Amino acid sequence: MAEHPEMNNWKDKIHEIIFEADTPLGKLFDEILIVCILASVLVVMLDSVESIGGEYSQLFYILEWFFTIIFTIEYILRLISVKRPAKYATSFFGIVDLLTVIPTYLDLFLPGTRFLLVIRILRVLRIFRILKLAKYVGEANLLIKAIKASSRKITIFLFFVISIVVVLGSLMYIIEGSEHGFTSIPKSIYWAIVTLTTVGYGDVAPQTSLGQAMAVVVMIMGYSIIAVPTGIVTVEMAQAFKENITTKSCQGCSYSGHDSDAKHCKYCGSEL
Amino acid sequence: MAEHPEMNNWKDKIHEIIFEADTPLGKLFDEILIVCILASVLVVMLDSVESIGGEYSQLFYILEWFFTIIFTIEYILRLISVKRPAKYATSFFGIVDLLTVIPTYLDLFLPGTRFLLVIRILRVLRIFRILKLAKYVGEANLLIKAIKASSRKITIFLFFVISIVVVLGSLMYIIEGSEHGFTSIPKSIYWAIVTLTTVGYGDVAPQTSLGQAMAVVVMIMGYSIIAVPTGIVTVEMAQAFKENITTKSCQGCSYSGHDSDAKHCKYCGSEL
Amino acid sequence: MAEHPEMNNWKDKIHEIIFEADTPLGKLFDEILIVCILASVLVVMLDSVESIGGEYSQLFYILEWFFTIIFTIEYILRLISVKRPAKYATSFFGIVDLLTVIPTYLDLFLPGTRFLLVIRILRVLRIFRILKLAKYVGEANLLIKAIKASSRKITIFLFFVISIVVVLGSLMYIIEGSEHGFTSIPKSIYWAIVTLTTVGYGDVAPQTSLGQAMAVVVMIMGYSIIAVPTGIVTVEMAQAFKENITTKSCQGCSYSGHDSDAKHCKYCGSEL
Amino acid sequence: MAEHPEMNNWKDKIHEIIFEADTPLGKLFDEILIVCILASVLVVMLDSVESIGGEYSQLFYILEWFFTIIFTIEYILRLISVKRPAKYATSFFGIVDLLTVIPTYLDLFLPGTRFLLVIRILRVLRIFRILKLAKYVGEANLLIKAIKASSRKITIFLFFVISIVVVLGSLMYIIEGSEHGFTSIPKSIYWAIVTLTTVGYGDVAPQTSLGQAMAVVVMIMGYSIIAVPTGIVTVEMAQAFKENITTKSCQGCSYSGHDSDAKHCKYCGSEL
Repeated sequence: MAEHPEMNNWKDKIHEIIFEADTPLGKLFDEILIVCILASVLVVMLDSVESIGGEYSQLFYILEWFFTIIFTIEYILRLISVKRPAKYATSFFGIVDLLTVIPTYLDLFLPGTRFLLVIRILRVLRIFRILKLAKYVGEANLLIKAIKASSRKITIFLFFVISIVVVLGSLMYIIEGSEHGFTSIPKSIYWAIVTLTTVGYGDVAPQTSLGQAMAVVVMIMGYSIIAVPTGIVTVEMAQAFKENITTKSCQGCSYSGHDSDAKHCKYCGSEL
Repeated sequence: MAEHPEMNNWKDKIHEIIFEADTPLGKLFDEILIVCILASVLVVMLDSVESIGGEYSQLFYILEWFFTIIFTIEYILRLISVKRPAKYATSFFGIVDLLTVIPTYLDLFLPGTRFLLVIRILRVLRIFRILKLAKYVGEANLLIKAIKASSRKITIFLFFVISIVVVLGSLMYIIEGSEHGFTSIPKSIYWAIVTLTTVGYGDVAPQTSLGQAMAVVVMIMGYSIIAVPTGIVTVEMAQAFKENITTKSCQGCSYSGHDSDAKHCKYCGSEL
Repeated sequence: MAEHPEMNNWKDKIHEIIFEADTPLGKLFDEILIVCILASVLVVMLDSVESIGGEYSQLFYILEWFFTIIFTIEYILRLISVKRPAKYATSFFGIVDLLTVIPTYLDLFLPGTRFLLVIRILRVLRIFRILKLAKYVGEANLLIKAIKASSRKITIFLFFVISIVVVLGSLMYIIEGSEHGFTSIPKSIYWAIVTLTTVGYGDVAPQTSLGQAMAVVVMIMGYSIIAVPTGIVTVEMAQAFKENITTKSCQGCSYSGHDSDAKHCKYCGSEL
Repeated sequence: MAEHPEMNNWKDKIHEIIFEADTPLGKLFDEILIVCILASVLVVMLDSVESIGGEYSQLFYILEWFFTIIFTIEYILRLISVKRPAKYATSFFGIVDLLTVIPTYLDLFLPGTRFLLVIRILRVLRIFRILKLAKYVGEANLLIKAIKASSRKITIFLFFVISIVVVLGSLMYIIEGSEHGFTSIPKSIYWAIVTLTTVGYGDVAPQTSLGQAMAVVVMIMGYSIIAVPTGIVTVEMAQAFKENITTKSCQGCSYSGHDSDAKHCKYCGSEL
């Protein structure tokens, strides 16, 4: 980041510390923030365990207020230092920042609302913002690109899976009936998904011969068609990675996405 | 669609609305139809849930007749507007259209036949017809092409899996016996499929040491050989996708494996 | 098959019918044999189901003798018509043919030995011989080639998996102990395999917090490392299929496994 | 290994036997060691089975001391024969060698410490050292290379999975609550991992409709996103295998992507 003469402004300084990852202070800030986030998430988790939560509830209460105050200060500093506070406040991370701070304050007025307290666990999402600045960006973008490229094909696949599961689930509702746990069509569809995805809880399982034969069909189908999303993503990833590793750049038009065996630029025809 | 002078015929108009997706009216028709299909499927599902079905049975009854009448009208309009009604009536979607309308009428004469009522869930398949006209066609065709190309290899694989499962299932029938839940060979084969596909309900599980050792073999086998269908489909997809993006052929050196965005041959540099 | 003048020998005729699939009689023989094999396997299966086996035991007994006599005649004819009977008798299929016929005869002398009767289910393997003659040969060979090429890498992977499972299973034996179902190290290793392969019966499941934390590690490991065999097989398949689809044949040395973009034979250098 | 005149030294001889796999004595030593390792691991396993351990405890006790003494002698010989004993003693395999020998001695002073005895199972890791010298090295290195190349992408993926699982698990804690087995957030996260990885024990399973709907989302997500690590590893393996077979470079056109069995450049035909 180039240093501007008028940069000694304190707002810019804060912006640099909070939003940059390249400066020593920015790096330190990120590291402290990650520790705080993970610690506060751990507190929320342990607080929910009855055997622990009861004993240390005093400690957890203090820690929670400690983290909440830190995150509140951080939120306010972010609001102050960005150029367009409204845009930050309505962005995904702005909302997450606010959402994960509010429940502790609300607990003063509406104590005991478990749902509100659990919202604080969303803090775990805040780590993604820090990752955004780090060395993983390139690789993550590659993955996102491949997943986006395959999203339409995956949608078709999922639509197909849902149709199968609705039809087969309804069929099982007729075959097995409510006396064997298939009490309604939605429940039977739930079973079909549990089986097709090879999760197999076993809380609902076919008991008639015909039902077990049907279940076998669903299982073998699930075991085979997992090849479809895997194939789609693999091919798109191969494509995305390939485009990424080709570094030869055309001298005519400066395009750099050439295949490794290309001798001429495919856009302007000049030799590479 | 080119406008013909004699097109002001009302049959053609209906045909355009029902079968075309490019005109505003055709699009609107498709959208309304999708909503009706999904709503009617939802009604069938919720109707089967005892706690809901009882309370709202009056409402569901009315809604069901509402959708049935709409779909009946649609079916008749389709029959009238197509050139060869017999062909439509005996086509896959023609049969689905009829099948999903009849049960409600039959319920008047044969009330309470749960099996008939569940047939209405097949309406979910009707959505595929509308998708056929939409932007997903190209991608879906690509997937179908890849799956067709790999179908013979998958058949060999499935035949191999079934043989393994029959032999291993029978072996487990001898090892574990009916006192541990392996009451017959078909039941033992059912267990072998549940295990090989990694579903693992746990309703039947080996209890002797030898049986558990055998189960371990089946599990590791199932965990490893899933690579086979995945590999087959991935390779065929890579092939199908590759063929899809390469249709242009170079006039200079007749090489035809160009990317879809290439303007020059990457081998000889001549324009495409 | 070229007709020889001395072919009117009855042995050759039998050989042609039994071992050839191209002649009408050979084809008919194969088809009848497949039906007999499947029917006899079905009889063995159903016979083991108590509710069915009891009622139709008379019928199954007659059918079993019918199939046994047919397969015995077939076995004798095979022995007579092949040039080297000893080699056939000691081949894999020769042993299967004999093994699946003997139990019925032995049952006359040693009635009630369930183990012997179940051996008859190995008849299902005989279908592979008929497939060997059919149109699936090429594709099956391709698959076998790819699996053979990846077998050494898969072995390394399986050895790695077994080591993990032994160490993690033993760890769980200490953590959970026999009071939570982990009664011995082999049992704990069994649990580790059930979990790593994502089968998850649930007959043994961790109950302490530490045990569940360990289980989470095993699950995520199992979920991730399945990518390894899949990757190996996919790459080897891509290689095997690629070699297969290249049909260009060199005029210099008649080698036909060229890459699709090769301009010169890679063995003798002559232009393609 | 070139023979040096001063090699008749006994230390060098021991070093050759223990560390080399090419000489007949070295090979024999490796084979005996593998048998001892596997036998001693088997003894540890069987010893933990109550029904067997009790009966043969005397035999197992003797065998354990037999193996311990052999491994102790081996450890001392290794220490003596290597040039830098300190480096060996602090290496991974040096520590494993020591760790797996000590528990038996400690048992004399602190009898009955189950934890100590189970450490002996780590002997199974010692087999990897012998594999290091064997023919599997090349293939194993290839696999390790591919896994290393994909490790950063896999890390991103696992981080994403953990975030999902934390958020969805917490959500399920609110939806289902402790009355349905979701007694705390960590327990709910445990359930989310069991479901996402398609293990599906069934020891904790959603019982409300909303919970089952959420579970369905987790299952379908787990079923789909397994494509991501599989895709990553497959692509990296394809890359690693490709690099492995292409080391020769054409002197005519400097193309270097030749197959390992190519004798002529496939682009310009000049000899390699």
